[in-house]
Amino acid sequence: MRLIEEPNFDVAQLAHIEIFSPKPEETVDFFTRLLGMSVTARSGQSVYLRAYEETYHHSLKVTESKEAGLGHAAWRTISPQALQRRVEAVKATGLGRGWIEGDLGHGAAYQFTTPDGHAMELLYDVEYYQCKENEKTKLLNRATKRPDRGVPVRRLDHINLMTSNAATNTDFMLNALGFRLREGIEDNGNLIGSWMSVSNLVHEIAFMPEPNQQKGKLHHLCYWYGVPQNLYDVADLFRENDVFVEVPPNKHGISQALCMYVYEPGGNRVELFGDAGYLILDPAWKPVIWDMKDVPGNGDTWIGTAFPESWWVRGTPVTVPEIAKS
Amino acid sequence: MRLIEEPNFDVAQLAHIEIFSPKPEETVDFFTRLLGMSVTARSGQSVYLRAYEETYHHSLKVTESKEAGLGHAAWRTISPQALQRRVEAVKATGLGRGWIEGDLGHGAAYQFTTPDGHAMELLYDVEYYQCKENEKTKLLNRATKRPDRGVPVRRLDHINLMTSNAATNTDFMLNALGFRLREGIEDNGNLIGSWMSVSNLVHEIAFMPEPNQQKGKLHHLCYWYGVPQNLYDVADLFRENDVFVEVPPNKHGISQALCMYVYEPGGNRVELFGDAGYLILDPAWKPVIWDMKDVPGNGDTWIGTAFPESWWVRGTPVTVPEIAKS
Amino acid sequence: MRLIEEPNFDVAQLAHIEIFSPKPEETVDFFTRLLGMSVTARSGQSVYLRAYEETYHHSLKVTESKEAGLGHAAWRTISPQALQRRVEAVKATGLGRGWIEGDLGHGAAYQFTTPDGHAMELLYDVEYYQCKENEKTKLLNRATKRPDRGVPVRRLDHINLMTSNAATNTDFMLNALGFRLREGIEDNGNLIGSWMSVSNLVHEIAFMPEPNQQKGKLHHLCYWYGVPQNLYDVADLFRENDVFVEVPPNKHGISQALCMYVYEPGGNRVELFGDAGYLILDPAWKPVIWDMKDVPGNGDTWIGTAFPESWWVRGTPVTVPEIAKS
Amino acid sequence: MRLIEEPNFDVAQLAHIEIFSPKPEETVDFFTRLLGMSVTARSGQSVYLRAYEETYHHSLKVTESKEAGLGHAAWRTISPQALQRRVEAVKATGLGRGWIEGDLGHGAAYQFTTPDGHAMELLYDVEYYQCKENEKTKLLNRATKRPDRGVPVRRLDHINLMTSNAATNTDFMLNALGFRLREGIEDNGNLIGSWMSVSNLVHEIAFMPEPNQQKGKLHHLCYWYGVPQNLYDVADLFRENDVFVEVPPNKHGISQALCMYVYEPGGNRVELFGDAGYLILDPAWKPVIWDMKDVPGNGDTWIGTAFPESWWVRGTPVTVPEIAKS
Repeated sequence: MRLIEEPNFDVAQLAHIEIFSPKPEETVDFFTRLLGMSVTARSGQSVYLRAYEETYHHSLKVTESKEAGLGHAAWRTISPQALQRRVEAVKATGLGRGWIEGDLGHGAAYQFTTPDGHAMELLYDVEYYQCKENEKTKLLNRATKRPDRGVPVRRLDHINLMTSNAATNTDFMLNALGFRLREGIEDNGNLIGSWMSVSNLVHEIAFMPEPNQQKGKLHHLCYWYGVPQNLYDVADLFRENDVFVEVPPNKHGISQALCMYVYEPGGNRVELFGDAGYLILDPAWKPVIWDMKDVPGNGDTWIGTAFPESWWVRGTPVTVPEIAKS
Repeated sequence: MRLIEEPNFDVAQLAHIEIFSPKPEETVDFFTRLLGMSVTARSGQSVYLRAYEETYHHSLKVTESKEAGLGHAAWRTISPQALQRRVEAVKATGLGRGWIEGDLGHGAAYQFTTPDGHAMELLYDVEYYQCKENEKTKLLNRATKRPDRGVPVRRLDHINLMTSNAATNTDFMLNALGFRLREGIEDNGNLIGSWMSVSNLVHEIAFMPEPNQQKGKLHHLCYWYGVPQNLYDVADLFRENDVFVEVPPNKHGISQALCMYVYEPGGNRVELFGDAGYLILDPAWKPVIWDMKDVPGNGDTWIGTAFPESWWVRGTPVTVPEIAKS
Repeated sequence: MRLIEEPNFDVAQLAHIEIFSPKPEETVDFFTRLLGMSVTARSGQSVYLRAYEETYHHSLKVTESKEAGLGHAAWRTISPQALQRRVEAVKATGLGRGWIEGDLGHGAAYQFTTPDGHAMELLYDVEYYQCKENEKTKLLNRATKRPDRGVPVRRLDHINLMTSNAATNTDFMLNALGFRLREGIEDNGNLIGSWMSVSNLVHEIAFMPEPNQQKGKLHHLCYWYGVPQNLYDVADLFRENDVFVEVPPNKHGISQALCMYVYEPGGNRVELFGDAGYLILDPAWKPVIWDMKDVPGNGDTWIGTAFPESWWVRGTPVTVPEIAKS
Repeated sequence: MRLIEEPNFDVAQLAHIEIFSPKPEETVDFFTRLLGMSVTARSGQSVYLRAYEETYHHSLKVTESKEAGLGHAAWRTISPQALQRRVEAVKATGLGRGWIEGDLGHGAAYQFTTPDGHAMELLYDVEYYQCKENEKTKLLNRATKRPDRGVPVRRLDHINLMTSNAATNTDFMLNALGFRLREGIEDNGNLIGSWMSVSNLVHEIAFMPEPNQQKGKLHHLCYWYGVPQNLYDVADLFRENDVFVEVPPNKHGISQALCMYVYEPGGNRVELFGDAGYLILDPAWKPVIWDMKDVPGNGDTWIGTAFPESWWVRGTPVTVPEIAKS
């Protein structure tokens, strides 16, 4: 019997994201009134939100801050022992920061950063959302009733971070956390972008190059509809509510997902997914590597218009002169 | 640290299905002309087919036979050693049948049956489809070009088998193969239906009750679009080509998938999925258990009409008087 | 030059409908919270509503009444002189009732009934809706901003009335008002159903047989989305809000429209259209006449399940034992 | 009674279009294999085609020519006498060319041009397509079965012509032919673009400015799906078959239609409509006039990316240096 190295399945999913916003109430209005999410708690300078099909206390924490950007991303493991294994692996990289007792919605979590400095957490204990009487639905696999406001998103999908060095940061995610590389972009043989997952999704996390090698920026977070038309419906609502739409409904080549990108009022870029793209079921999946010269018109957009310059260069916090929005 | 039992991830996916057809050429015409699949090989009484986004040699083997029904279902493991582990577990149940050297499209496979007698295989070595020059696409994560005929399906999704005893057969899949129970139906406290997966899908396999406790029947196999409208497009094509549509486009409660059911000309029921339903990312997912009395109108169909009697009682081979199709 | 009789184009459109409701506030909640319509006025026992793309003061008047049913349907002509011509034609049939000075939202109107007794009005002068500052949109052909609540309908589409005699009532609409017959159902050579329009739509009005020859009932009124997916979105919302869905999303053969049917809380049946069906541009269109025996499975539903008995027999007011809703 | 001028309804519809193609067989392959149309006749250097829901002999005539461009557009009147009335009105403008006996698919037609020189015909007598046995469908309002190839279009929708002077050409269509102005663009008070119809559609014909005041160019012809998703399906097929997609799926502000633009192999621009946009039922519709400065980002595209320069300047025949396609 020919043996192969087996992947570890210790990390199960992206559990939640914290974003910073200089306009937290407007940010919350965006996620609740237009995207149909609900506030589940407020504490200090933070507001906690969830989408109607999410089972946990929250998937999004909005924290008031002088500048937009990533607070942290939290990964849930498959077990307490898997959490220990990943913590050991992270410690060995020297990027560990230590344990916290928890936060609203979850128990003990281990904090660390990517080589680029993006704050992350590993955790296992989560609090499940307790459904109120008037939120109960007969659809037993749905956590709460579909809301009657906005065009309601269903769940958090993934996060995309800008890095100063895709190769280094990708290696960290693969080696310390057990992600699998699903797609990548190479430029002259160097990895400059990567899409990684611990599940059948093409990615829970992606890395984009930050053009000035600045570290620690957020490119976007993404919520999921799974229904292509919902992108047009919410885009219409965005137009009517003066939300800046950077990329209207489009079909990515990489991931094949139907996508769109907007800026929430706090300045962070939010993506919305209109379908599941393709799913990876092959256990021996070989990463699809694009040459950068083939990406424009194929990898970025398979059906849609080329992405604007801003999409390629702007992350939060915005530290360089921002590209004009026109 | 509180420890919990970790799942095994040895089985990765449903690799292919073999169905029997008394009208193999008409069956192949159905899958190629209407569903856009391609014939990749013919051998003996069998024809091998694949969908345009599938990477393996085939996902469907159509074998001429006096009666419609299941040939076998094949599961691919994550590694050769995982294959050994699962073979040992199956052997321990007494349901193993032994190794075969392989078939067109894959290497050594271990044959066994469910307690109910459904033929299955475990395998690791698969042959990847070799793309022809005129099938090459610039969409690098797509195996071959989208066809210009029919309404082309993208990949095999799952299989549904009728059993004489859901509980026994479900236990076998969970214990010997490592499936996780995702949703179930109980009648007076007894499990009578189950949806199980080894991935983030709600199921790669489901068990339905066979009303006369007959063993080994196929309820349906399912191909995936991931695009809701495609169900209406292909349903229109079915109407024009005299394909029997048993359940027109509908939204299941269980799995939340947009579905439809038709009979291919050989008599087997084929389901088509118009989206991804919901995906299970929570590693501690608790099975959603429906009481049978709540299923009609909620679990079977969340948005759609109640399913016809035939859907509940007819499997292939058809051994009892078939429900009238009108 | 061979001459043919030219149609008259005097009647332009269905301008508004009045329905009776024994639960007017619940009816208004249904149309505003779930279908995204707005209240534009309240007067006496009546509430006036419009959809966001409608340019007139209202398309729906909900009037409190002991029983559900049709208040009246109002037709707008192409000119004041066309109004006079049609009034003369109606007077000649003996079905005229006389002029009223007007109502909120429109000027002088001529009242009459169909042979079956359905109340109708002819009018030309209408009041256009005055957009509030916060409703203004940059989409200049849209009357007001798309709302952020429910799944908002775009405009009134048509009305369907049950009659004791389709032939007589159809002749009246064709001869007195200038409608064209677009599709019809014949049973043993007798017209039992009809779809008529004054525009390129297949119908602004349809007649269904009332099984007990009762007169003057409303079968349904229909609002329009023009977006197929919106039917699934609003159906989901209906399920969560305990609205009775009589016919889930379905594709009619007659008219080819994507449709669904629900009961508003007052008891009236409301249809929702998910697309434009087909449009009739041929000026010499020959009515498509179905034999009743070919209607089930083709004419009623081309892609979808057969309609329930209730759909065929229940109108408002409900004067015979109502079909059980299960 | 206050009187108003009533419109004439003499012209009923756009009956067919002739285009020139330097690569007629490739053009025919595009319309048949990818758009699912059928060839109904060949004669001389011309091929006649129809879509599956069209009732006439053809809606498209492809004629071999050295350069791409418009052959002619043909308008059908509501009656023979309406034809005479319109011919008289055209003669009075001095733009008439005289009668022809007919062509395959229609009888006597009166030829004329717009002030800009675009060739047009007025006709009443048309030949209806005779359905073959294997094309018969149970959907009686559908002319022939839905095809199993490509993503089949349903009917011709409209034509868009580039003109040297929008105001002059628009006046001609309104005054001589009875079109109604539905939307327009003004630049410094001058009409530079117009959308006109004789039906409830926003337009059967539109005029765009030709940037160099060249006369007689074709901007595009448009076929209709009425199903939004079909745009993505056919766009995917276009990508795989190297058809140049100038504007991927997008939602116009003007007309509100879901649209996309591609070049057929002969070089002519073809638009595809994914829905019905909005329909005009108000008989006193006031033209929606856009100021050119408000058009970009609202009128051209309401949900979608700004149109490329080529879309604004390129018509066929291409007589000025063509904008680069990248």
